[in-house]
Amino acid sequence: MASIHDVAKLANVGTTTVSRVINKNGYVSKETLEKVNKAIEELNYSPNQLGKNLRSRKSYLVALFVPTIFHPFFSKLAYYVESELYHKGYKMLLVNSQDEPDKEVKLMKMIHSGQVEGIIYVTHYNERINFKSLPVVTLDRHIEGVPCITSDNYNASKKALYYLRKVGCKNIGFIGGKSSTPTEVEERYKAYLDFCKETDNPKTVSYNELKHGEELMVSKLFLDKNRTLDGIFCSSDLLTNACYLKLIENGKKVPEDVKIIGYDGALNELVPEPVFTVVKQRIDLIAKELVRTLLLRIDEEEVEEIEYISSEFVLGDTA
Amino acid sequence: MASIHDVAKLANVGTTTVSRVINKNGYVSKETLEKVNKAIEELNYSPNQLGKNLRSRKSYLVALFVPTIFHPFFSKLAYYVESELYHKGYKMLLVNSQDEPDKEVKLMKMIHSGQVEGIIYVTHYNERINFKSLPVVTLDRHIEGVPCITSDNYNASKKALYYLRKVGCKNIGFIGGKSSTPTEVEERYKAYLDFCKETDNPKTVSYNELKHGEELMVSKLFLDKNRTLDGIFCSSDLLTNACYLKLIENGKKVPEDVKIIGYDGALNELVPEPVFTVVKQRIDLIAKELVRTLLLRIDEEEVEEIEYISSEFVLGDTA
Repeated sequence: MASIHDVAKLANVGTTTVSRVINKNGYVSKETLEKVNKAIEELNYSPNQLGKNLRSRKSYLVALFVPTIFHPFFSKLAYYVESELYHKGYKMLLVNSQDEPDKEVKLMKMIHSGQVEGIIYVTHYNERINFKSLPVVTLDRHIEGVPCITSDNYNASKKALYYLRKVGCKNIGFIGGKSSTPTEVEERYKAYLDFCKETDNPKTVSYNELKHGEELMVSKLFLDKNRTLDGIFCSSDLLTNACYLKLIENGKKVPEDVKIIGYDGALNELVPEPVFTVVKQRIDLIAKELVRTLLLRIDEEEVEEIEYISSEFVLGDTA
Repeated sequence: MASIHDVAKLANVGTTTVSRVINKNGYVSKETLEKVNKAIEELNYSPNQLGKNLRSRKSYLVALFVPTIFHPFFSKLAYYVESELYHKGYKMLLVNSQDEPDKEVKLMKMIHSGQVEGIIYVTHYNERINFKSLPVVTLDRHIEGVPCITSDNYNASKKALYYLRKVGCKNIGFIGGKSSTPTEVEERYKAYLDFCKETDNPKTVSYNELKHGEELMVSKLFLDKNRTLDGIFCSSDLLTNACYLKLIENGKKVPEDVKIIGYDGALNELVPEPVFTVVKQRIDLIAKELVRTLLLRIDEEEVEEIEYISSEFVLGDTA
């Protein structure tokens, strides 16, 4: 007797697609429907029994891995991911990696076989995790064989930097948190380096690995050392806010003496003033695309290796 | 042949405790261990088969229901709950109710039978949810038959209010978000009312149902209408911050003209300045107690109906 894999192979689709056809559950194109039904017929299948087995294996549960949920960007991302999953009939398991690779590895083991259908992975690359054991999609992280959703970090950063120049800044600095593994966030830094070359802006940089909670200390070091900056481009909300606070403390006026442009734009919704001028990531659209891509992967469909979501440049009070 | 329930009944413990003994998995007191082993012997059990069945039924998954994860208090709570569950061998499923009772009801249905072992419920009371179908524990909410973990809201609020009086405030107002269902947060308001009676402080209140995101608007209305207040007691971080911003905008100096004391103290860690004077909830200890109580309920152990966690009064720059 033939297996579901034979049906899937003959129809040239994934096994989950076969299950969808059998269970009449989820979207399947007319063309695929016909292919699968034809294969079932050719192989003389007993779809009822098969459907039941497959159905019982679905958990409708997806795991989201973030460094920490106590962070405006990640809590907003989790909010939208959960909401989007819910609309697709899925639930969300949340993991705070807390920058502990051991915790991630242990949690992967704690997730029973079949308990989770896929992972949205937004922490640092962990070489001890087998990213081939189940469907995975990442945000901003580049991992071989794993589809990546990201923003147009390079172009959006360039636009922000040229805006600072247009409004009179001649000495623009960059402050960012470096990741131990390649992420798209690096593009913000690259955009700054290219901008410096293109415009003869002096290169003034704070770009080191950064733990959550160290933003104020790092900003203080950076601003105390570089007191002649007239513009600052910050690669995250918490750095933006920390730089703002330190500048005020140093007796500077924002935006009169120093202009600030931040990144992400989630904090503006929690702390409504000052309204930071930011490259605002469309976290709602990012979440939608992460979920859409992961569900395609769960259905064993082909997806793009990398997908870009446009950010918005939002003028506030700080530049 | 006797069932596991017979073993549990004879030993006077829960079935999960019997399973723990059989699987040598999790803490069991020496006394309980002896009782269970004695019952197994008396009833002539086949613990291996039984243990296997029970083991396969454990999901080691607990659901946390919050109104929204994009909020400093709830994201910090989720951070600690997830961390505490992890240390106990459990994972966390996260639900944002988004103030939609329908979503909660649908999600309860979406959670397969046996998929989740218990619920930490921190949203509004939803009469359409059957709180008897599985172990539940709440934070600050009073639901019949459901154990409640909370802070000493009344006493902590009284202490804060008397502090404002001690440092010279004679006209102290209260701003808070009312809940549609009875919660412990009401104790903060009751403390204010009693304080007014005890000290002849004029009663100036904004206490209505409040959606997340409305804090700034509500604070503006309150402060524009009541310009002679010299002290404000705010029942949440976001209201505290909103009042502060509005006072500054109205040309007031904090704490010289108006003193502010807030509640929760989670925002201070994201936005480090100004350091608000707050009644700081020990969210870490609250999470520990929520998890401890829920795991006891999962094991069908007796727990306290209500448990109080002490808050801390933390002096900052605003009072």
